[in-house]
Amino acid sequence: MQAGRKGGAALRIRWYWQKEKIPKYVDFMKNNYPPDFTYADFGPQFTAKFFDANQWADILQASGAKYIVLTSKHHEGFTLWGSKYSWNWNAADEGPKRDIVKELAVAIRNRTDLRFGLYYSLFEWFHPLFLEDESRLFQTQQFPVSKMLPELYELVNTYQPEILWSDGDGGAPDTYWNSTGFLAWLYNESPVRDTVVTNDRWGAGSICKHGGYYTCSDRYNPGYLLLHKWENCMTIDKFSWGYRRNAGISDYLTIEELVKQLVETVSCGGNLLMNIGPTKDGIISPIFEERLRQMGTWLKVNGEAIYETRAWRSQNDTVTPDVWYTSKPKSNLVYALFLKWPTSGQLLLDQPKATLGATEVKLLGHGQPLNWTSLEPKGITVELPHLTFHQMPCEWGWALALSNVT
Amino acid sequence: MQAGRKGGAALRIRWYWQKEKIPKYVDFMKNNYPPDFTYADFGPQFTAKFFDANQWADILQASGAKYIVLTSKHHEGFTLWGSKYSWNWNAADEGPKRDIVKELAVAIRNRTDLRFGLYYSLFEWFHPLFLEDESRLFQTQQFPVSKMLPELYELVNTYQPEILWSDGDGGAPDTYWNSTGFLAWLYNESPVRDTVVTNDRWGAGSICKHGGYYTCSDRYNPGYLLLHKWENCMTIDKFSWGYRRNAGISDYLTIEELVKQLVETVSCGGNLLMNIGPTKDGIISPIFEERLRQMGTWLKVNGEAIYETRAWRSQNDTVTPDVWYTSKPKSNLVYALFLKWPTSGQLLLDQPKATLGATEVKLLGHGQPLNWTSLEPKGITVELPHLTFHQMPCEWGWALALSNVT
Amino acid sequence: MQAGRKGGAALRIRWYWQKEKIPKYVDFMKNNYPPDFTYADFGPQFTAKFFDANQWADILQASGAKYIVLTSKHHEGFTLWGSKYSWNWNAADEGPKRDIVKELAVAIRNRTDLRFGLYYSLFEWFHPLFLEDESRLFQTQQFPVSKMLPELYELVNTYQPEILWSDGDGGAPDTYWNSTGFLAWLYNESPVRDTVVTNDRWGAGSICKHGGYYTCSDRYNPGYLLLHKWENCMTIDKFSWGYRRNAGISDYLTIEELVKQLVETVSCGGNLLMNIGPTKDGIISPIFEERLRQMGTWLKVNGEAIYETRAWRSQNDTVTPDVWYTSKPKSNLVYALFLKWPTSGQLLLDQPKATLGATEVKLLGHGQPLNWTSLEPKGITVELPHLTFHQMPCEWGWALALSNVT
Amino acid sequence: MQAGRKGGAALRIRWYWQKEKIPKYVDFMKNNYPPDFTYADFGPQFTAKFFDANQWADILQASGAKYIVLTSKHHEGFTLWGSKYSWNWNAADEGPKRDIVKELAVAIRNRTDLRFGLYYSLFEWFHPLFLEDESRLFQTQQFPVSKMLPELYELVNTYQPEILWSDGDGGAPDTYWNSTGFLAWLYNESPVRDTVVTNDRWGAGSICKHGGYYTCSDRYNPGYLLLHKWENCMTIDKFSWGYRRNAGISDYLTIEELVKQLVETVSCGGNLLMNIGPTKDGIISPIFEERLRQMGTWLKVNGEAIYETRAWRSQNDTVTPDVWYTSKPKSNLVYALFLKWPTSGQLLLDQPKATLGATEVKLLGHGQPLNWTSLEPKGITVELPHLTFHQMPCEWGWALALSNVT
Repeated sequence: MQAGRKGGAALRIRWYWQKEKIPKYVDFMKNNYPPDFTYADFGPQFTAKFFDANQWADILQASGAKYIVLTSKHHEGFTLWGSKYSWNWNAADEGPKRDIVKELAVAIRNRTDLRFGLYYSLFEWFHPLFLEDESRLFQTQQFPVSKMLPELYELVNTYQPEILWSDGDGGAPDTYWNSTGFLAWLYNESPVRDTVVTNDRWGAGSICKHGGYYTCSDRYNPGYLLLHKWENCMTIDKFSWGYRRNAGISDYLTIEELVKQLVETVSCGGNLLMNIGPTKDGIISPIFEERLRQMGTWLKVNGEAIYETRAWRSQNDTVTPDVWYTSKPKSNLVYALFLKWPTSGQLLLDQPKATLGATEVKLLGHGQPLNWTSLEPKGITVELPHLTFHQMPCEWGWALALSNVT
Repeated sequence: MQAGRKGGAALRIRWYWQKEKIPKYVDFMKNNYPPDFTYADFGPQFTAKFFDANQWADILQASGAKYIVLTSKHHEGFTLWGSKYSWNWNAADEGPKRDIVKELAVAIRNRTDLRFGLYYSLFEWFHPLFLEDESRLFQTQQFPVSKMLPELYELVNTYQPEILWSDGDGGAPDTYWNSTGFLAWLYNESPVRDTVVTNDRWGAGSICKHGGYYTCSDRYNPGYLLLHKWENCMTIDKFSWGYRRNAGISDYLTIEELVKQLVETVSCGGNLLMNIGPTKDGIISPIFEERLRQMGTWLKVNGEAIYETRAWRSQNDTVTPDVWYTSKPKSNLVYALFLKWPTSGQLLLDQPKATLGATEVKLLGHGQPLNWTSLEPKGITVELPHLTFHQMPCEWGWALALSNVT
Repeated sequence: MQAGRKGGAALRIRWYWQKEKIPKYVDFMKNNYPPDFTYADFGPQFTAKFFDANQWADILQASGAKYIVLTSKHHEGFTLWGSKYSWNWNAADEGPKRDIVKELAVAIRNRTDLRFGLYYSLFEWFHPLFLEDESRLFQTQQFPVSKMLPELYELVNTYQPEILWSDGDGGAPDTYWNSTGFLAWLYNESPVRDTVVTNDRWGAGSICKHGGYYTCSDRYNPGYLLLHKWENCMTIDKFSWGYRRNAGISDYLTIEELVKQLVETVSCGGNLLMNIGPTKDGIISPIFEERLRQMGTWLKVNGEAIYETRAWRSQNDTVTPDVWYTSKPKSNLVYALFLKWPTSGQLLLDQPKATLGATEVKLLGHGQPLNWTSLEPKGITVELPHLTFHQMPCEWGWALALSNVT
Repeated sequence: MQAGRKGGAALRIRWYWQKEKIPKYVDFMKNNYPPDFTYADFGPQFTAKFFDANQWADILQASGAKYIVLTSKHHEGFTLWGSKYSWNWNAADEGPKRDIVKELAVAIRNRTDLRFGLYYSLFEWFHPLFLEDESRLFQTQQFPVSKMLPELYELVNTYQPEILWSDGDGGAPDTYWNSTGFLAWLYNESPVRDTVVTNDRWGAGSICKHGGYYTCSDRYNPGYLLLHKWENCMTIDKFSWGYRRNAGISDYLTIEELVKQLVETVSCGGNLLMNIGPTKDGIISPIFEERLRQMGTWLKVNGEAIYETRAWRSQNDTVTPDVWYTSKPKSNLVYALFLKWPTSGQLLLDQPKATLGATEVKLLGHGQPLNWTSLEPKGITVELPHLTFHQMPCEWGWALALSNVT
């Protein structure tokens, strides 16, 4: 499975500024805003006035993603739905004055076959009850009891997400967050008990160790096989999770780099969660739309080598660089994804062992069985077809399907 | 005792508009703001940038008031201190980014001998938890448990008000608000248990019936003696509790009208609570300052007939209109306050019975004993002194002190 | 004649800041606005949204003024009418989007008997053409030729003011401004040639020397008789021509001080031009309205001693302080205006010489002839009537009409 | 020559709204701004805060363009330099408070070999002097005399543009604009007299008939040879000259479409002027930067067939679609640009007549002479090289250089 995560916060770039006082953000604020302007003052400026959930759904569908994860609340605490526990600091009361979570959930479910997931930050940078608990070394639980837990129940009950992407333990253990109790409810009693998937960020120390799938660190892409389910959560903008008005084209990953991320991740057993940050107007900017649609175009041809595959015994080839493997054991299929079309027209694969009469090799999107020769003790050399520019099934990366190799 | 007032809400004029949809407020918003502009969007515009608590304290002191009552939170829920339970909808996080309650408390206590009181609205128009409780006919208590009660404890513990002026039951009974429990704590355990005074607005049906002093209705001024302590809570602006940028001079009570309100109220056993609305910049506008200082000038001469007095057996004279009585029984003093200087130079009082050799009559601010003649069976005619314009001790109303009358 | 000048610029306080870089204004901007905020950025904030010319006209009429002078353009160049020569920097294109000059002209002419005057600043602080002319020592006339002269013709032709109050020579001589040519047109050909009155500010060196009436300096009040017609142009706000949001009551002249200014000025042969600054919302603030109406109340009683009078041979009394004289020679009347009611009940005037059988003395607003005794060689002692507080015809100052004195 | 025109107005989308009252723009304003918000109110919102002329210059250079044309003033009259004749309605006084024209001119001249051009709108939609002239059927010339002509002289003298791109006659003849006089000065006396190039929009009726190069209509691309020099002035955004915050990727031309526009235009003897609209922050948005850099990549390989070429006797091939010709007569070279790589590997050209032993055919970016066979009476079939994906010199279009064909 592949995925695109939508970061819902047009405001995100600013958090560094206020919480961490990094000089360049401090200067930016000083040069462009009145003194004493705070994060809260951005609220009314986040209008989402052009937000069209149907349009988003169509773009997300076109990207080839299988699930999306909307940031329903980030560390600044602004909820994208009308949380009863975050009055006047949520999208229904302020700024858009719309229930963004609901609109997107409806559109995704009406118009696409994607699964709908929600990101939720447990802690909040500025919430006074959290800060008070923290100052007491988490010996009190004012914040989880009156804010985080009721809000999380409300979120799950109301929008019934199929993925719940928890984040931000704030240095507090799972006992503080009462994660065990909440997860017990989620899996046993909640309206999504039969379908929900979660991740590994439910209290200090749990990340990359306990929970549903592992996320480990941002932009986690180890390059080797992990035994546990995992996800590479990364961003198209190389530097930011939120939209940056002043980004240049070199700040974005190219489609070649994105395809490479996807191929590497899936070969190592992970899912790719590709983040984009919408504008404060609620728009997926054209450059993001271009990348998403390019990814969809590529997946239309090569999705067979990505969706519902498993890691193979080898992740990448030992001889030819930039060749990565996936597999479908039940169908006796191995896929070799290669990111460079060889000048010689021949692709040498050191890992698969082919069997004359049984093994067949095809280029996805081409269809015709290709000639190949077996090597000893293992390995195979494939004759790629001679294709002119417009005959190529795709660009940026290709996949061979090898049946009955070992 | 004489009284101060509720300041604090530069935003107040607007509440009618959003909650009650009165056409002229709806139109005003439509003509002057973008569509979908809500109450919450005013937050950043309330800057209090010129707010100087010391300056306020000096003006309030000069007014002759003995206590002040600051609106710490009104029905819209915006708290003037950094309430932990109203994050991002309070003056410390938004708008002024200052703790208005604290600044004023400190200034009042450092610079004046006024008592410091706080107004607090129990319910809130827009709070989702209150609205949910309400929709369940107050069978649940989400709002008092997680918002109103912890906030009220925080308020009292932090700022230790000497008057707690509760308001806004929202149609819910005192059992919903848990008023009995709270008041028991307030009077028995709180840091202000020995000094605090409260009013009568602690749940549906309690107003004008139970509690500390009675406030009954806004601008309550019955004109007759009440057996219970009470307060006339009224406004200098005839039409509004909040500041109105477009008010004209005829919208304000004149000093003559204000003196009359004070005299009537005190004669009937009440306190006067005179409301002003500061500007969004945090300024007491000059016209309010003029009225407050005029009141102080008047009280410097006539305060003796107001402060620490009691109602007398008669409230006003049966023969001469606009004469009102107060008394100090321990000092055998009765005060006759008169609002019109008689053309004849003689003031006829039908109520007091004077005794030759014992009774003495003086004009406050003048000092010399005045000639008088007794009437039968009771009553007294006083010869007022012949004073030129600049010899008058004051304008707008005068007081005679009569000793040893019955 | 007495007068009130209306300053139309809610923006005025700020000009000191930008042009002269006075530290406290620089700091104010730094603390409250984004960096690089300029004077021009205030344009959209000046909305005049509550401006009601009829309401203004009624207040101005009630003040007892005989003419008004609206600041149609000040040194910052923003015109209060839709000047064709100041596109996008005028009230019709920006901010109010209304023709303020026209609305007020119509209201004044429809509802009052006041004369309608216009103030106009010749130079402009920031206009690039003026600055270029200035840098060439006024050897070029780009600014007057393409901006100031066509604009001034447009102004006079369109609104036909009865007073044209020129200001701001910018250090340039009348030859640069072509004042002589313009004034020749104004007096000989313009639509107001038969009625228009102007002042003395038409080029460097002309002030207090040439022109219609003299204005000399701001708040000019010499205290002695001037041979030429003149005007005391002063402000109710002691410190500012524009409205200040943060002014306190002590920043405004009291009504006693204003009556004194009027009496002194008229006794010395001048007119009083009393400035007020409206708010950016287009409101005459209540404190200004209070002063204007108080002035009107006073003039209703004492106007006879002010309007259409002339200076007398003595301006003020040599014996009794705060007594000032005016006269109506054709009616053989001398007026003695006194600002303090004497404790003795007798007013001694050293200047008038009364004649038994011919001279009659009355208190304006009272009507009854008063007893008096003549002194030698001149002088008169007047017995003021014994009046109680509510019998006084007015406060703050009084006038005696003496007929047939010399 | 190829070119990119820079539209400097982040404000442009809005002009339709105010001037032409198109319902969808009227609605947009009604839904998002306060009533009476006008074009002028956008001024302070156009900040260009991220504008970096050096960055622009580098992007423009990378695009392969040979000249740029900055919109120094469009029909709304806002000048991007500090025009002395447009005070407070220009980028130096309002919004950016910077001289955008100067900054870009300096950067272009310091860092690139592009020629620097300026667009200038003669008329203005809202200028009162123009409107007055118009209402008099252009019998008066107030606007050109006091605004347009001095401004245009100022512009040319100060920034010395090598292209002057006039626009917007407003329905007035060249005699009204005094175009002949101005152009005489421009070509004979101005500081750019030896180098300047202009277009054909200098008065009603001159477009596509008189002047330097013809622009005829927006997005003019006739598809046949024009005898006069001409330019196809079009936009990457299919629908707008200004930046649109709510544009989706399908609103932009693809790089394939842009290459096609360029090839067609140059083959027919024209220049291509490709418009982009920067954001109000002063940014060339990433999608525009992507297109510009793609174009530059393509031109690095194929520029030889574009720059300094002439139209050939045939513009496009009569047999093979999407083949367009250019030529360099002095070098005896004809270029055949083809937009589709033939599946057969052979490209049939019906127009060129090759000569055995003299004619040589090469693929630009490949370098090796290709095999070809001549047809009778004319025509040639070229064997394209067999290249794998990564061996292709470029995408989107290719060029054959044919020497010594007729």
